[in-house]
Amino acid sequence: MANKIATRCDIMLFGALGDLAQRKLFPALYQLERAGLLADGSRILGLARRELSSDEVRKELRERLKQYVKPEEFNPSVVEAFLQRVEYQVLDFNNEAGFGLLNSWRDEENSELIVYLASPPAMYGVIARNLRSASCCTEKTRVVVEKPIGHDLESSRVINDELGEVYKESQLFRIDHYLGKETVQNLIALRFANNLFASQWDQNHISHVEITVAESVGIEGRWGYFDKAGQIRDMIQNHMLQLLCLIAMDPPSDLSADSIRDEKVKVLKALRRITPDMMETYVVRGQYTAGTSTGKPVPGYLEEEGANKRSETETFVALKVEIDNWRWSGVPFYIRTGKRLPEKLSQIIIHFKPAPHYIFDPDQKHLANNKLIIRLQPDEGMSLKILTKDQGLHKGMRLRQGPLELTFSEAFESERIPDAYERLLWEIMKGNQYLFVRRDEVEHAWHWVDRIIQNWSDGGDPPKRYAAGTWGPVASIAMITRDGRSWYEDA
Amino acid sequence: MANKIATRCDIMLFGALGDLAQRKLFPALYQLERAGLLADGSRILGLARRELSSDEVRKELRERLKQYVKPEEFNPSVVEAFLQRVEYQVLDFNNEAGFGLLNSWRDEENSELIVYLASPPAMYGVIARNLRSASCCTEKTRVVVEKPIGHDLESSRVINDELGEVYKESQLFRIDHYLGKETVQNLIALRFANNLFASQWDQNHISHVEITVAESVGIEGRWGYFDKAGQIRDMIQNHMLQLLCLIAMDPPSDLSADSIRDEKVKVLKALRRITPDMMETYVVRGQYTAGTSTGKPVPGYLEEEGANKRSETETFVALKVEIDNWRWSGVPFYIRTGKRLPEKLSQIIIHFKPAPHYIFDPDQKHLANNKLIIRLQPDEGMSLKILTKDQGLHKGMRLRQGPLELTFSEAFESERIPDAYERLLWEIMKGNQYLFVRRDEVEHAWHWVDRIIQNWSDGGDPPKRYAAGTWGPVASIAMITRDGRSWYEDA
Repeated sequence: MANKIATRCDIMLFGALGDLAQRKLFPALYQLERAGLLADGSRILGLARRELSSDEVRKELRERLKQYVKPEEFNPSVVEAFLQRVEYQVLDFNNEAGFGLLNSWRDEENSELIVYLASPPAMYGVIARNLRSASCCTEKTRVVVEKPIGHDLESSRVINDELGEVYKESQLFRIDHYLGKETVQNLIALRFANNLFASQWDQNHISHVEITVAESVGIEGRWGYFDKAGQIRDMIQNHMLQLLCLIAMDPPSDLSADSIRDEKVKVLKALRRITPDMMETYVVRGQYTAGTSTGKPVPGYLEEEGANKRSETETFVALKVEIDNWRWSGVPFYIRTGKRLPEKLSQIIIHFKPAPHYIFDPDQKHLANNKLIIRLQPDEGMSLKILTKDQGLHKGMRLRQGPLELTFSEAFESERIPDAYERLLWEIMKGNQYLFVRRDEVEHAWHWVDRIIQNWSDGGDPPKRYAAGTWGPVASIAMITRDGRSWYEDA
Repeated sequence: MANKIATRCDIMLFGALGDLAQRKLFPALYQLERAGLLADGSRILGLARRELSSDEVRKELRERLKQYVKPEEFNPSVVEAFLQRVEYQVLDFNNEAGFGLLNSWRDEENSELIVYLASPPAMYGVIARNLRSASCCTEKTRVVVEKPIGHDLESSRVINDELGEVYKESQLFRIDHYLGKETVQNLIALRFANNLFASQWDQNHISHVEITVAESVGIEGRWGYFDKAGQIRDMIQNHMLQLLCLIAMDPPSDLSADSIRDEKVKVLKALRRITPDMMETYVVRGQYTAGTSTGKPVPGYLEEEGANKRSETETFVALKVEIDNWRWSGVPFYIRTGKRLPEKLSQIIIHFKPAPHYIFDPDQKHLANNKLIIRLQPDEGMSLKILTKDQGLHKGMRLRQGPLELTFSEAFESERIPDAYERLLWEIMKGNQYLFVRRDEVEHAWHWVDRIIQNWSDGGDPPKRYAAGTWGPVASIAMITRDGRSWYEDA
């Protein structure tokens, strides 16, 4: 895992004029330039269908960078140096003949080729085949693909098969941008570099785990797109199961991509399948109705522009997940995610078990378990809830919950936290796959999620309503209360 | 341990005009008054040999309170209310007949009598006997005694026997003011209310422990007094062994005084006796020479006013302490204390063992153990050293040591940290002995310390010199280096 400088490479960016490329990928590449991490001679070829010249695209990009890069990080001379690497080529991705051009663009000295598919997943196969026909990919080509890899196990297999026909698994970099977040990677350091935690990371010491990924926004004008997916496909199948895997996996014997991914797959395989009779107590799906968001009235999901009034798509999911293995037997993972919740908040809470014997004031016994709170956003950082003596003179040996706090942005002031895509692009250039999702991970995750979706369509209850601006249906609270617990709220 | 309000009581304070009473005890009693913790009708009788009237003593006290209480805590009307409780009586402690007066002072409604012996320990016996002769003590009398309880096991037995002739052990409150410090009591909450620590508090998880109590001052004009004792009697036999006991003791099954003290005694009995052949590697004694302290040149110990140039009294001691029991086998406690060290600092450092397997950069392996740092002064608080991912983009999976910090004064801003004597007086009034030292603790501590002193006088090397303003003799560093460790320095 030691630092390696990336060698020079050519990057072909399919879908270069799309939202993802403009908003995330070019700004991230610019940041790599700014950090001196792009090798001399590395080049970027933007590809899309629109008829534009390279100059026009560069001009457009200059504006977008101004928009998406923080002013204090926007350095005009670095921007110009960066734009010199960028060329643009009009290309119809279905047109096999057009791909011939790409081969002539390749710089012989750039042995590495990165093909970034920021295009709809339906195009992955055809692009891959056209690249092969144009003899434009070698053993050293790395192919980057974005989610969604299908909408269920079967469709994901189709996509993976199409990619697998042309590329080996070791050439494929499936992005889950959560894995590029510093705090998410930090889970690995936190768990395996700190024996204080490592030695307690099991059912002997942990009572339960909570994972919350809350959004305050609604579906942001993408009703049609979102409605086909729903929150379980959009957030659980990928991001949240990845978080769960990083929290739950056994320690890998090294940090190589496959050691880590082998362990994650073991977790996915050990997830207890949710059978129809479990739906009532293990699964809550919700759909928001009109309410308020950050103080303003907002419409319900079925009243959004373009909505089909009869949609049963969920905008909220809460699950109780059991992992049937030695480490986690009897330790439920409560996970929830939703749109139009009261705040944008992602956090993981490890609830440690209390000490076997309690000797302090009986009325404080409810305080007596340690909690490790890992905040992914906002204010990335962590906090360990520790009991100390309340120091009021007249209080005798009373307890008080004091947090040991570490906010990353404060602790390491001098350094900016890189955006997930910067980290991911950098790792792709270095050829490190450990932050990317292997085929079997995708498929095991679909396999588990499909079952829940199947149960819903086999005649489950419709989604439970919750008012926009609340923490989801009351059934989500009931689910955890039933186990004598509650969703964590920072006091 | 729940809060009880103290019942009304009479307090007889022997040595009321002495330094301890004026500087610590009256200000602490004033603070109890200010906090509303002195019951109506509770009274204080100061006793000393000087011919003064109660009014004169109150006048003097008013001045001393102004001097020793922080301005923002000095409330004139509370001071006056407090002084109304105070009377003064001239008394020759050797004069049995004089004690008759005391009995007539007693208020019948105040069933509780607290006798505070802030007098030289040589007087404890005669005062106790004279009180008995005057029928001035009942089963409910509580007697408070200050250190030193003797200068070795034998002399401490004499004092304890004299007290024991008149009072039962349950009536005796032996003060070690370290036990009154909030941070020291917090060790009990920290260890036993937090399973995160409780479950790791043994030789499986801890590699070694450090305890440092450093003073920057020299002997402050008390050369003759200090020279008879030396640092081992002055600091190790009492304060530092108490700290060690609180860190090392097995969990008590409740918070009663005897449950806690039984556990402390078990530790003292398990201390490995230091035999002559161990002196070279387990014990360092030092004596300071001229140097600088807080930027100013200061004389050496043998050049202080009144010094006997041939004194071999130690002003510094470092010990490697082994505890031969199940919990601590193989876990050394390195303890050191000295005068004229670079700063005033008391801290305990728990060094946890690293994880069994290390998967990060080999050149960072030295970082890979967690440390819990408990600061007693300055800035009472604690800090847990945790490894996180270094978030620099180009750094890959590099580690970084980040502290989880809790500074008590910051965390609980609204509340002042009570002085040790306030807490101790409050516990005496409530009749709680858990912060006071039992006879067998004193005697086991002397038993262990005596052996070291005996080894010195049986012809050990003279104390090793260290320049004032340094961290003691280099032999202290060598002692811990020999074990492949080093005294912790905050980076």
